[in-house]
Amino acid sequence: MLVVKKFGGTSVGNRDRIFNVANRCVEEYRRGNDVVVVLSAMGKYTDVLIEMAKEINENPPKREMDMLLTTGEQQSVALMAMAMASLGVPAVSLNAFQVAMHTTSVYSNARLKRIDAERIRAELEQRKIVIVTGFQGVNKYDDYTTLGRGGSDTTAVALAAALHADKCEIFTDVDGVYTADPRKVPTARKLDFVTYDEMLELATLGAGVLHNRSVELAKKYGVQLVVRSSLDMSEGTIVKGGHKMEKMIVSGVAADTDAARVAVIGLKDEPGVAFKLFNELAKKNINIDMILQSVGRHGTKDITFTCGDEAADEAEKIISEKMEFESIDVNKDVAKVSIVGAGMQSNAGVAAKMFEALYDANINIRMISTSEIRVTVLIDEKEAERAMNAIHDKFDLGDHR
Amino acid sequence: MLVVKKFGGTSVGNRDRIFNVANRCVEEYRRGNDVVVVLSAMGKYTDVLIEMAKEINENPPKREMDMLLTTGEQQSVALMAMAMASLGVPAVSLNAFQVAMHTTSVYSNARLKRIDAERIRAELEQRKIVIVTGFQGVNKYDDYTTLGRGGSDTTAVALAAALHADKCEIFTDVDGVYTADPRKVPTARKLDFVTYDEMLELATLGAGVLHNRSVELAKKYGVQLVVRSSLDMSEGTIVKGGHKMEKMIVSGVAADTDAARVAVIGLKDEPGVAFKLFNELAKKNINIDMILQSVGRHGTKDITFTCGDEAADEAEKIISEKMEFESIDVNKDVAKVSIVGAGMQSNAGVAAKMFEALYDANINIRMISTSEIRVTVLIDEKEAERAMNAIHDKFDLGDHR
Repeated sequence: MLVVKKFGGTSVGNRDRIFNVANRCVEEYRRGNDVVVVLSAMGKYTDVLIEMAKEINENPPKREMDMLLTTGEQQSVALMAMAMASLGVPAVSLNAFQVAMHTTSVYSNARLKRIDAERIRAELEQRKIVIVTGFQGVNKYDDYTTLGRGGSDTTAVALAAALHADKCEIFTDVDGVYTADPRKVPTARKLDFVTYDEMLELATLGAGVLHNRSVELAKKYGVQLVVRSSLDMSEGTIVKGGHKMEKMIVSGVAADTDAARVAVIGLKDEPGVAFKLFNELAKKNINIDMILQSVGRHGTKDITFTCGDEAADEAEKIISEKMEFESIDVNKDVAKVSIVGAGMQSNAGVAAKMFEALYDANINIRMISTSEIRVTVLIDEKEAERAMNAIHDKFDLGDHR
Repeated sequence: MLVVKKFGGTSVGNRDRIFNVANRCVEEYRRGNDVVVVLSAMGKYTDVLIEMAKEINENPPKREMDMLLTTGEQQSVALMAMAMASLGVPAVSLNAFQVAMHTTSVYSNARLKRIDAERIRAELEQRKIVIVTGFQGVNKYDDYTTLGRGGSDTTAVALAAALHADKCEIFTDVDGVYTADPRKVPTARKLDFVTYDEMLELATLGAGVLHNRSVELAKKYGVQLVVRSSLDMSEGTIVKGGHKMEKMIVSGVAADTDAARVAVIGLKDEPGVAFKLFNELAKKNINIDMILQSVGRHGTKDITFTCGDEAADEAEKIISEKMEFESIDVNKDVAKVSIVGAGMQSNAGVAAKMFEALYDANINIRMISTSEIRVTVLIDEKEAERAMNAIHDKFDLGDHR
């Protein structure tokens, strides 16, 4: 069996943790399996490097920033190989040039294009554990690139796909994917399985366990993902394809408090107004989420949308400069609460049941948006936790032990 | 004009120093010249990395050590490119993979074999300052290697040779090559020129300004070297080929206190004894310097040699295990004092003049060794400084201003 294991920065943050990871990998290796390990930079070292760069240049060239940041993972993999060597196991560390990990040209936010698997295969054939730098790649100019947020997860999944690995384990500080954030919903239950689509919706909704780009990639290449804890030996959650096996219609409840509602009142009611507005925002890379358009008074129309808290002020500024309207209102004290479940596709009344739960809890719904396997509502931020619990209970997602 | 400039770790040890180097390079660039910069890791960062490695593994695999250490120079070059960008000058950093710097396979002490100059040329043609990681290379396995002590000097000279640079400036914390160490000989004078051969003897004798491997390379490819200060704008010392232009017969006096004398008394006087002794030492990589063989009492012979202080104890152990003899004596309180000068080849009586200086100063000579352009004597360590001054005065090397 060939297993790809990915560990984040916290898992390799000091000597003891490095050996904890080394031991887990060596255990797998000694069971006779081939092991490929993907690592991030140690602890907060990437932040340290960013700080160093900012001292030199407030706005450093992105190419040079990637050149600087990629040293972080290279240190992690070299130290990990040393730890494994001291445990008596042959290991070899590889950076993005050595693998090679080919990406698009754009610095600081590149996408993986192609992975050469020959070097890794050759090392595995010699029964070595192969330790690969996450987060980084090489572009067509032969320069380092980095993959942006969640990049090491993407590296791991892409490697698993390229090597036809039997599974890709993503080690994190939680022990799997839950029906809701256990810190907010005490009855939250760990899921044994979720589908790629469910995981995608959960990732997008800020459940935060996996980056959506890595889940998309896993879905595309059919890589079996396992989300599990680096701290204990529990089994974790398997993310895979196909329809939901369990009877549950809804797999989880997620909340995202980094949401703001922008209401633009009294826009001219003529063709192209909505296009112009969202086009101006897109030009500045402001991601829009839910959109609501309604007829206003005196032949005008109102457009309301949500975006991240930080983007809201910039959105207000852009709209004020570029559009004609009566008034604009920004409210950052809102949260998105969503239910996700592959079973929803074939079950009517799921949305209604969610609304009923909120009605029963006397929580006001400000906006609604849905996909095939998701229902999202916008509510007041202060109600978010209560809403999650009410919905969780209504769908009976909890642990009944 | 194309100039290669090399700066050591101290010169890039913090933000201000990085900008000092950046400004000097930008100045050269703005005069219309092509500039290639070679950097070491910042300050003592290489030592920090070694410390990290030792915490993980007392005896880390050398391949992984090189993988770890090469991150140091990569950070330096990226930060330097950022500094130059903030000064408004286009710069690009390149590591050993990007150049590429091909070396022999051996880790931690590789030799440069070949440098691909295309990438650097292409960047220079776009009028960029090119910043290259010193000390590191890539071997035929596509792995990082490091060049050992003085490696960044070697990188700079090799790049200058590959690019047919007009000169290679080695920036250091002294302002050139002196007739003797100015901290020990107050009248020491800075030399405007020295020949490669003289510099080689001085480097080998621990004058410490340049590593001998880089001088050898400069001589081989006729690269004009300049040793100058990174702290001020003084002209430095030019190291180049040909015979000594100045009238001086002796260019400099050097002392090396890292010397020990090992005397093996009463070895059997039969063929092959000396071979066996030095062969056993060579097998353990103990470098021997001066050698003296003399006839002992009762048909035996004595062999006396010098080596580094640290190697002396191991040499004693090896000899005790492998050889038959009467007694062995190790004395670490000795120093080598040498005079160097290309003019010695055609001038008789130079050695005698040196011995006379020591006799006048009442300093006892324990051993003597000579090359075509060098005379070395072994004396008591506590006399070293006095000996240097006596010789320096005798040859009238001082500054008469």
